Amino acid sequence: MNTRFLDACRCRPVDRTPVWLMRQAGRYLPEYRRVRSACSFLELCKTPELAVEVTLQPVDILGVDAAILFSDILIPIEPMGMRLDFVPGPVFEEPVRSLADVEQLRVPAMEESVPFVLETIRQLRRELEGRVPLIGFGGAPFTLACYMVEGKGSKDFGSIKKMMYAAPEIYAALMDKVSTALIAYLKAQIAAGAQAIQVFDTWGGILAPSDYQRYVLPYTARVIAGLGSEVPVIHFVKGAGAMLELVKRAGGDVVGLDWHVGLAAARDVLGPGVAVQGNLDPTVLYGPKSLIEAEVKRILDENNGRPGHIFNLGHGILPDVPPENAVHMVECVHRLSSLPSKGGGLNNSFSPRVGEGDKGASD
Amino acid sequence: MNTRFLDACRCRPVDRTPVWLMRQAGRYLPEYRRVRSACSFLELCKTPELAVEVTLQPVDILGVDAAILFSDILIPIEPMGMRLDFVPGPVFEEPVRSLADVEQLRVPAMEESVPFVLETIRQLRRELEGRVPLIGFGGAPFTLACYMVEGKGSKDFGSIKKMMYAAPEIYAALMDKVSTALIAYLKAQIAAGAQAIQVFDTWGGILAPSDYQRYVLPYTARVIAGLGSEVPVIHFVKGAGAMLELVKRAGGDVVGLDWHVGLAAARDVLGPGVAVQGNLDPTVLYGPKSLIEAEVKRILDENNGRPGHIFNLGHGILPDVPPENAVHMVECVHRLSSLPSKGGGLNNSFSPRVGEGDKGASD
Repeated sequence: MNTRFLDACRCRPVDRTPVWLMRQAGRYLPEYRRVRSACSFLELCKTPELAVEVTLQPVDILGVDAAILFSDILIPIEPMGMRLDFVPGPVFEEPVRSLADVEQLRVPAMEESVPFVLETIRQLRRELEGRVPLIGFGGAPFTLACYMVEGKGSKDFGSIKKMMYAAPEIYAALMDKVSTALIAYLKAQIAAGAQAIQVFDTWGGILAPSDYQRYVLPYTARVIAGLGSEVPVIHFVKGAGAMLELVKRAGGDVVGLDWHVGLAAARDVLGPGVAVQGNLDPTVLYGPKSLIEAEVKRILDENNGRPGHIFNLGHGILPDVPPENAVHMVECVHRLSSLPSKGGGLNNSFSPRVGEGDKGASD
Repeated sequence: MNTRFLDACRCRPVDRTPVWLMRQAGRYLPEYRRVRSACSFLELCKTPELAVEVTLQPVDILGVDAAILFSDILIPIEPMGMRLDFVPGPVFEEPVRSLADVEQLRVPAMEESVPFVLETIRQLRRELEGRVPLIGFGGAPFTLACYMVEGKGSKDFGSIKKMMYAAPEIYAALMDKVSTALIAYLKAQIAAGAQAIQVFDTWGGILAPSDYQRYVLPYTARVIAGLGSEVPVIHFVKGAGAMLELVKRAGGDVVGLDWHVGLAAARDVLGPGVAVQGNLDPTVLYGPKSLIEAEVKRILDENNGRPGHIFNLGHGILPDVPPENAVHMVECVHRLSSLPSKGGGLNNSFSPRVGEGDKGASD
């Protein structure tokens, strides 16, 4: 069994750096496009056999060290009472704007309202047979609230910020309800078999650090604490490179890093107790291959053998990346991180088990 | 004469914190919309009497401590040989993609090709009569190259990044030519009377720090060094909160800060020799007024009396902000920063001339 990913989440030594890609089940793969061409995005999310199929594709094609549930962060919002469409971006036609809107939201029982998510997880654990661990995920409360209040994508997030600033009691009631629902949703994923949870805060970085601390951190902290310590939690806030100490304070065994911050500098801020995930610029996968290898090496060198590094992109893989370039990236991470250490990649060179050489703990 | 702004650029003591707003001449003002309703955006940029009128509006209405030339960063690109449209965002119908495209670009003589910009500056200096200083500006070479290569706005900047990664010689030839043209353009602004220059790197922050260092920093550094030391230079890279030491290395008397980084933390990174400009989240101007005052106070407190702070938004003012809220912000900055120091706003409390009390050097 490949436990590299889970070991790295806990800052334990590994034989080589584990790697997966955000949005690894997606449109850049012809195998995904074939499945997707026969159904809508929401149907794909809600049909376990199909969701299982596309979740497994990159495990086989790319050789990554983890699978991640195919789903969407807005799935648990629908049973709260909001009609969700994809056109193709997500749209809530009746966004939340008043206290009455918040009060109408339900906190649903997850086994009844999203059985397809939990069934997908159970099927995936059977199909994977322990080959690689399965990551479940959800949006952070703030990111979910952004979608619920804006109703769709936004450039300036004027509606949620007006609520936050001018009607803080409505904002707090919404965040409270979303956080409660989210804890139930993610605990249900863990109970169904998810072996790690990633909390995606796609929009946390739109705020000033002082606003993040006041309006976001307490809710994310409550959610992460609410999941207990059974499985590792990856906490990813996009655009938070200049406030990583606040992201750390909100919790998580692993802090996800986008590509706007240097990995070495980020690890210096976060300290040795926290693993990191990242942080290749997704456009590097446009190639050429020599560049991909050089950039993988640069990031492994920046990590400089510190335990607790999961290689990943700094955001989702882009839809027009050639799959062979993603395969090449995964191969480079594995090859370069298993070389005998010359101050370079070897991921357990700082570890207490370094005496065991490159065998690592996970074989 | 109000020299607060220029004094703060040089880290000299001031009687109160100077303030202006990025995009202060703009759509949120009914007075601007009236002028703009009778002409296109490009006509407004190219007609000195109109550009002068809208430049002066916020000086009178808001009471800011500096005027900034009304223009667009893409104005000097047109005479390089690229047809520019606004629909309403900027579009180059024939983007630069090949070495032949780069070789066809001219480095124009600025007095002949953008006389309206220089005439606007000369008229503005006469009209302002020293009331407040006049800021000229240009885009940083990378930001201009982004528009020239993408041809229009972009989410992932795939075209410029593919060029940078896969055809670095074309990228270098383009950046070289743009930098040369930009130095000529900004020196012409200074010769015409601009009393400070802001270099806007709107897109520098889309890159990883290592890529910024390799592909952007040398060109921006050449431009800033090429302007000499006659007038202060403000260097603003949006989204660069996690790589401010690189921004500092590229140069500038003042480093502009967006709102994603704390001002105190940024000043700690930058050190005492560099002034800062920023960094209120533009959405705070949606109000309420009590929030605006609290946020102004927070930022002044974060600066904690260090010399060399110019108050500004972290990005341009939003088009639907009530003008009275912008007026309130300016008033709060002036009022709160001229209070006797209690570890709060007073901007010369760290200065060598603190013995002169709150009279300051600029009266």
